[in-house]
Amino acid sequence: MITDATQAAGIDVNVPCGGQGRCGRCAVVVEQGNVRRRSTMRLSAADLEAGYALACQTVVESDLEILVPPQEEITRHLTTEKTAAKVSVPFEYDWRVHSTLTKHYLEIEPPNLADNTDDLARLERELAKCCDIRGLYAPLPILRTLAQTLRNAEWHVTVVIDRGGECPRIVDILQGDKTETLYAAAVDIGTTTVTLYLVDLYTGEVVETAADYNGQIKRGEDVISRIVFASKGNGLVELQSLVSNTINKLADRACARRKCKSHDIYKMVIVGNSTMIHLLLGMPPEPIRLTPYITTINHPPLVLATELNLNIHPQAPVDCLPGVASYMGADITAGVLSSGTHHTEKVTLFLDIGTNGEMVLGTNEWLVSCACSAGPAFEGAGVFHGMRATTGAIEEVWINQKTHEPTIRVIGGAKARGLCGSGLISLIAEMFITGVTDKGGNINLSLPTPRVRTGEHGPEYVIAWANETAIGKDIVITKPDVDNLLRAKAAIYAGYVVLAHSVGMTMNDVEQMLIGGSFGQYLNVEKAIEIGLLPDLPWERFHFLGNTAARGAYMALLRKDAREEIAEIAKKMTYLELSADNSFSDQFMAALFLPHTDMMQFPSVAKVLEGKEEEPVVSSQ
Amino acid sequence: MITDATQAAGIDVNVPCGGQGRCGRCAVVVEQGNVRRRSTMRLSAADLEAGYALACQTVVESDLEILVPPQEEITRHLTTEKTAAKVSVPFEYDWRVHSTLTKHYLEIEPPNLADNTDDLARLERELAKCCDIRGLYAPLPILRTLAQTLRNAEWHVTVVIDRGGECPRIVDILQGDKTETLYAAAVDIGTTTVTLYLVDLYTGEVVETAADYNGQIKRGEDVISRIVFASKGNGLVELQSLVSNTINKLADRACARRKCKSHDIYKMVIVGNSTMIHLLLGMPPEPIRLTPYITTINHPPLVLATELNLNIHPQAPVDCLPGVASYMGADITAGVLSSGTHHTEKVTLFLDIGTNGEMVLGTNEWLVSCACSAGPAFEGAGVFHGMRATTGAIEEVWINQKTHEPTIRVIGGAKARGLCGSGLISLIAEMFITGVTDKGGNINLSLPTPRVRTGEHGPEYVIAWANETAIGKDIVITKPDVDNLLRAKAAIYAGYVVLAHSVGMTMNDVEQMLIGGSFGQYLNVEKAIEIGLLPDLPWERFHFLGNTAARGAYMALLRKDAREEIAEIAKKMTYLELSADNSFSDQFMAALFLPHTDMMQFPSVAKVLEGKEEEPVVSSQ
Repeated sequence: MITDATQAAGIDVNVPCGGQGRCGRCAVVVEQGNVRRRSTMRLSAADLEAGYALACQTVVESDLEILVPPQEEITRHLTTEKTAAKVSVPFEYDWRVHSTLTKHYLEIEPPNLADNTDDLARLERELAKCCDIRGLYAPLPILRTLAQTLRNAEWHVTVVIDRGGECPRIVDILQGDKTETLYAAAVDIGTTTVTLYLVDLYTGEVVETAADYNGQIKRGEDVISRIVFASKGNGLVELQSLVSNTINKLADRACARRKCKSHDIYKMVIVGNSTMIHLLLGMPPEPIRLTPYITTINHPPLVLATELNLNIHPQAPVDCLPGVASYMGADITAGVLSSGTHHTEKVTLFLDIGTNGEMVLGTNEWLVSCACSAGPAFEGAGVFHGMRATTGAIEEVWINQKTHEPTIRVIGGAKARGLCGSGLISLIAEMFITGVTDKGGNINLSLPTPRVRTGEHGPEYVIAWANETAIGKDIVITKPDVDNLLRAKAAIYAGYVVLAHSVGMTMNDVEQMLIGGSFGQYLNVEKAIEIGLLPDLPWERFHFLGNTAARGAYMALLRKDAREEIAEIAKKMTYLELSADNSFSDQFMAALFLPHTDMMQFPSVAKVLEGKEEEPVVSSQ
Repeated sequence: MITDATQAAGIDVNVPCGGQGRCGRCAVVVEQGNVRRRSTMRLSAADLEAGYALACQTVVESDLEILVPPQEEITRHLTTEKTAAKVSVPFEYDWRVHSTLTKHYLEIEPPNLADNTDDLARLERELAKCCDIRGLYAPLPILRTLAQTLRNAEWHVTVVIDRGGECPRIVDILQGDKTETLYAAAVDIGTTTVTLYLVDLYTGEVVETAADYNGQIKRGEDVISRIVFASKGNGLVELQSLVSNTINKLADRACARRKCKSHDIYKMVIVGNSTMIHLLLGMPPEPIRLTPYITTINHPPLVLATELNLNIHPQAPVDCLPGVASYMGADITAGVLSSGTHHTEKVTLFLDIGTNGEMVLGTNEWLVSCACSAGPAFEGAGVFHGMRATTGAIEEVWINQKTHEPTIRVIGGAKARGLCGSGLISLIAEMFITGVTDKGGNINLSLPTPRVRTGEHGPEYVIAWANETAIGKDIVITKPDVDNLLRAKAAIYAGYVVLAHSVGMTMNDVEQMLIGGSFGQYLNVEKAIEIGLLPDLPWERFHFLGNTAARGAYMALLRKDAREEIAEIAKKMTYLELSADNSFSDQFMAALFLPHTDMMQFPSVAKVLEGKEEEPVVSSQ
């Protein structure tokens, strides 16, 4: 394939679908030589005439000259980095009691002929005396420098110990008293965004937050595309290195702000969905994609930073938290912890919508969960003018009931470039409520406005005219876009219902709904209910918790009992494989409407549609 | 130094003294360019005029052209390899009960939608069912191939498990039933010779033995020289790689004979003196050489073959057995185990003379030990015509009482090239008994034979005339040679006495003397007593056990309780640092005579000297 050649040549060609020939974004122009196009999906006859070929689907049959068009830069404008900076210590914390990672300054008795105890045993003796730490494990790299360090330091050293594993382990030995600082990091590897909290383990505070796009995006926008990419050639190694580079960049950035070094980070706790964890650990994720969807391991062992090419301290333990199944990863178990779902007596529905949609229903006594392959529609993918929530994205839309003219709000106050997830939800809700579409999402072409028309892809609605945009083209939403979004929201809603039914409940039994994931932060509850993405519950039952995954990792980093609690949650949680559930597809079909086939489930929306004055919503229990 | 330049250029220049400028064997000819000679020891005026310089002591001051004379090849003729081949299983052994390393063939239930347990947990479940193995640890390299292996093998796999550490660890997973063989190795790293036993863990038998010179010899013949070499530039890395290459070569050789692969060796137990173990593990040994003689660690942790560049299975655990002190290593603790010193009710003196002389006095209730820096005199070093016990070495000498003409026996029946350790002992004893030397080791130049004469190095005795040798030169023993040997044997004898005194005993209290080390095999007790190297005890109290160190490693490999016993021995054994002992130098001075100043300690020798008919020796208790 041409992609193999460009990779070998070190030329970057983005393959957002992972090289499946589905997205069309790897198109290049063949200027010289012979190729065989296995697929030309997304290429027009004109494209083919102009020499375009999909790099991931085109076999090289001779020496070639190809033109690689400029690759889309992934814009760095992450609101998470700005908004997540304030994370407070979530519980009682005393590093001496709770932290598995500790530093100890020791003044060791130098040896003499009458006491020729070996170096490590001298250090152990002192550590037992001062801090009651016994049964120490010293890895080979530490032993290789121990003699020199002790002697150069004249036997006054600072020992960094981690007690997260089977026995206390030496992470580093520093000359002199270096106990002033003690840093660790909690990391959430999202399919789209990676977030790192730099934590001062003495106070327990998050002292810096850094976030950026997962460097793997250019090799696939969703988990399936990544898995496909990983299964080809050197793909797994490349994806491993891309994500560790992203983490390294974030660590460097956070440490630079804190005026310390990445090397000072002595421990890392990581969460992510199971595919992200497999890719980070370099484990082939292929069986996650194929039925019956099996991970290599749900409870990964502690590994060392150096094994993952992380440039924090090479001997730093890296703790990837446990998940439950291929599509129920550590991001959710950690989210359950930080949301408190497992501690409340209220029937709680915990939802994390990111690139996937995972949800957990439960109380302090039981937990059931499922995952919906919603796809990345709410992250702007699979929608013609979809984009991520960065500058230029339309994040909210209002449509005039009479004129059907839209009013839009754009991130950064700039000219519009496209629509992000919250903008899409708001747009579809408004289109539905104002009659631009019917229940089935069909655009009403008979409305007396030029905004509705038939375009290249069928019926469409124009949100912004070319001259109002930054892209010089009309920004539209098409029937295929609406269908995509309907499928995504239907999958999620069907998930709620199947989950509730599995424990003999209905959605009305849900006493609180906790929403995690950065996407939740921008979700307008009213609009989300109007399209049937959220259940029609009283608004006060919804709580938006932000990045519950990162917060759970942070809690596990601070206290060993919290770490153990996540393992308990993972063990206790029942996972419902929806593809093995008979009722899921019925529920999915029923939810493929705005807001739902069964309007009884959406009384508040029914009222709005009836044109009634909206009354305060009352619990339907 | 020139040695740095030759090393960088990949040219081999032997430095048997480790680069201390003491041995003179790294001499090269400077043909062009400027150098500064820091030392010219062992070079004559004529040598200097001819351009000779010691490579390890000569500073490069310009571009140079140097001539490197042919380097001495270390001849491969190791009798150990041939004689040690028969090692029988030393105790009751059932691999299912005793071996920490085991193989298990599993037919694992493939996953399905109703049972999506992860790969590792499926394997663990099966292992718990079949063999009651729980709490498994799977290292990252295993996890990285697990999914593929299970699926390629259609879920029928052989798992290799080691239970030598804190928790059971997966060493390898093989497709299909591969339980037919199960190999491990026990290795003794001697300063001079490395010995490897290839063990069939099903039967417990040593199926192949391989031995060869330690590749480090060319970088130093004794431990001190090696430590000096290790402390310079890249020395430690080079010595680490030399010894692992030696082990690799032996493993390859043994496996080739057995028709298996080095990769099939799944565990290795290693013994050696503390310096050898430090060099193997890549830990700088410098503090072992400097007072107060401290090791980095006496009880090394389990490491992996891959960490040591050993080409057995990369995930194979490598267990370096525990020692006691810088000069009381695992070779001795393992030797105590295999000799049974720690189990007997008899007062036992266990002696291992190799390049060093270590000894342990004790019973099943107590153990005291010390080490004498005897130097490698008994391995032929520090003696002008000394050599190792290979083809051409004189191994036994008889001198005619009247004519003072010698009769010699040469290894391999060839022409003589020099004298090995047993030859030297036999020679000195004969010279003493026949009056060629006096008690002080002075050669009697007034004897009426051309065999005694004054040579370049003072008085000497000719053992073989030039035309009878393979080297075309007279083979002689000089006064400095005799002095060297006297110092070596005096150090060892003083060790016995100080050790016995430390527990309120004399040599007569020793009820048995167990001698380990390959050297012991060739020792003539009568001669060794005559020179005062062995105490004057009834002959039946001496037992020669061969390579007790390798045998101890082998026992520890077979049974975990034997492994634990060695750790117990190491903990229980008191180590006497002779350099901190006041009486040692007095005892050493007293032993610098043939056989000793105090002839009361050598009654049988006194009788021989009195010209009396030797009577059966009776215990002097």
